[in-house]
Amino acid sequence: MKYPFATRVQGITSSAVRDLLKIIQSGNVISFAGGLPDEALFPVQELELAYQKVFRSGGKYFQYGPTEGDSELRMLIQERLREKGIIASLENILVTTGSQQAIDLLAKVFLSAGDTILVENPSYLAALQAFQLYEANIIAVKSDRDGMIPEDLEEKIIAHSPKFIYVVPTFSNPEGKVWSKKRREALLQLAAKHKVVIVEDDPYSELRFTEEEPVPLASMDADGNHVIYTSTFSKTVAPGVRIGWMTGPEEVIRMGALSKQSTDLHTSSIDQRAMYYFLQDFPTRPHLDRLREEYRHRSLVMQEYLSKSGQNLFHWVEPQGGMFLWLSINRAIDTAELLEVALQEGVAFVPGASFFAGQPERNTLRLNYTHATPDVIETGMGRLMTAIDKVLASRVND
Amino acid sequence: MKYPFATRVQGITSSAVRDLLKIIQSGNVISFAGGLPDEALFPVQELELAYQKVFRSGGKYFQYGPTEGDSELRMLIQERLREKGIIASLENILVTTGSQQAIDLLAKVFLSAGDTILVENPSYLAALQAFQLYEANIIAVKSDRDGMIPEDLEEKIIAHSPKFIYVVPTFSNPEGKVWSKKRREALLQLAAKHKVVIVEDDPYSELRFTEEEPVPLASMDADGNHVIYTSTFSKTVAPGVRIGWMTGPEEVIRMGALSKQSTDLHTSSIDQRAMYYFLQDFPTRPHLDRLREEYRHRSLVMQEYLSKSGQNLFHWVEPQGGMFLWLSINRAIDTAELLEVALQEGVAFVPGASFFAGQPERNTLRLNYTHATPDVIETGMGRLMTAIDKVLASRVND
Repeated sequence: MKYPFATRVQGITSSAVRDLLKIIQSGNVISFAGGLPDEALFPVQELELAYQKVFRSGGKYFQYGPTEGDSELRMLIQERLREKGIIASLENILVTTGSQQAIDLLAKVFLSAGDTILVENPSYLAALQAFQLYEANIIAVKSDRDGMIPEDLEEKIIAHSPKFIYVVPTFSNPEGKVWSKKRREALLQLAAKHKVVIVEDDPYSELRFTEEEPVPLASMDADGNHVIYTSTFSKTVAPGVRIGWMTGPEEVIRMGALSKQSTDLHTSSIDQRAMYYFLQDFPTRPHLDRLREEYRHRSLVMQEYLSKSGQNLFHWVEPQGGMFLWLSINRAIDTAELLEVALQEGVAFVPGASFFAGQPERNTLRLNYTHATPDVIETGMGRLMTAIDKVLASRVND
Repeated sequence: MKYPFATRVQGITSSAVRDLLKIIQSGNVISFAGGLPDEALFPVQELELAYQKVFRSGGKYFQYGPTEGDSELRMLIQERLREKGIIASLENILVTTGSQQAIDLLAKVFLSAGDTILVENPSYLAALQAFQLYEANIIAVKSDRDGMIPEDLEEKIIAHSPKFIYVVPTFSNPEGKVWSKKRREALLQLAAKHKVVIVEDDPYSELRFTEEEPVPLASMDADGNHVIYTSTFSKTVAPGVRIGWMTGPEEVIRMGALSKQSTDLHTSSIDQRAMYYFLQDFPTRPHLDRLREEYRHRSLVMQEYLSKSGQNLFHWVEPQGGMFLWLSINRAIDTAELLEVALQEGVAFVPGASFFAGQPERNTLRLNYTHATPDVIETGMGRLMTAIDKVLASRVND
């Protein structure tokens, strides 16, 4: 039987990353592919105590709950936002099933088929996929290591009247870069001038390796009308809990909540309440400090390997935080082909092409350094170098 | 600032039920409004043991997981489906964040703006809302207490070429009715003849008050090509866990999983794993028997009150299971107006109008009998009678 699927799913493809994860789980492959934190660093004991507290209240938190989320959890999120300079009323905070759902709900609320949005290039893969499912016209703005180029941004705002501009300004996925303050200001000014909404996706900013804290766009938005901010506990606590949130202009958050009603009613009440107790009872600073130190160390191990193996072969920007190292190989090499050889050698990564909205740079790849331990990183990088050598050698022989 | 929302959310309204729930939580109102199970009957102790087991595995189940869901949980769901005569391969089972998400994903996968679907009349409110968000053209098929009228169904299939037919054939929401076997067969025959997909939403069938088990459409679908079946643990275990599932033709489930990837990546891994241990370690039969007996008793208490108060005033069909009693008042009364008086008296229900896809029957209301205890039901019904008396008396005086 032929099923009459909607036009939005015609040509839908699985996330390269998630398909890779499936292959990798089965074998002896070292994976730098997934955006996984290290489960050995999850605060399992503290979470256990938090869940125990949920059970001590009897069935209360096993019942249906409000779509907007547990109100006491939202109060704690509100406090954390305030520490970042983001002022949000309680009504303007919506708890979501991970920040991926926030992205999906914003697409649902803003995008009719054919509507245009602007994104960085490269950009977060699963956001691109969410936007594609709402049949968005995705236009990439020219970007360098400091963020979007303001001239190109303004030109594209004028040419396309986008519904919103989607950015990950702090430790971006896949590039791991940080937008400069100047570029952040330019983006906000252009958004205000042309009355365009910005979606600021900020899952990684707590994982910074430097003292200086990047200032979120949402805290710089003078009238609070232009930035919708989303983040998550997936990287700082644990992703399996699936708790994210979004905040922004009242009307937008209200629309998001109305859409969430028919999307999944609400996020797990048990997980929300456990997260509330976890945040309430345990100081997060020592845990975050440990994550930062450990992940920074791993990023350095990876970079040292790269430095010693191919000073002229590779180009990358040193990650200041987050989970990814974005590598360019200074040769005519397609990393999708490289991946096949790499998997034979026992190492995986994500070829860069799928992160691009327009013309891809095929000599790029994304390496995750947070999941593997330092010695595994060294072994995996060794395998990657072997794979690269093999591919380059076969080129010479062709 | 004016936000450029998508056409799909123009005119979106909040669920009457969920808004009611918010009002009710604040006051001393007895609520027959929400579709809530009784939290006092949740198997909290067993769930606590199940969650403890998740923690004993360390961080493993706090990590990102497969979009399709925990594979061992899916194996247990597969077994349960088999007990109902539904044969599903593991690949054809997708775990969702409650069955509400299954409904949303099916709408996402099938509905382009303007596409037609057929529904019963009245029908499940939050499904109608999900379909509306994908700009569906929702057509109600004439229905009586045995299900859709086959003649009207076939006429509307031919006239509208619907993308799917959405039904809750067992203990429907809001009517609490059970489709007859004959009507089930007729629906399947028409679906096969005209190559239309059926979405069978079955959240309530485990809550039956009779010995006889209604046969799901999915088990009668000879070639397994026409029925997509969705259910949930919300009514039999606890809704706060937010775990539902869907099964159906491979191609449809694959599309559902691909769409879920960008919607929320996956459902809480912790909750899924805890549900796995819960189902694995505890016999569910005694728990279900207790729920059935208790909910049946409550439905009888409610009906006894109705019988003694207004034999000629009311019409309803005795619930054979599920959570709702659907009441018609044999007077020219608008239950939306009645609700205002009822809230003053301290009792709440859902006016029937919002469950209709076409012309509503305004003299109807939905009463939930599973959340309140028997004595609270009696008090609440007393308040409801007072409210009805007041409204009818004011009519006479007009």
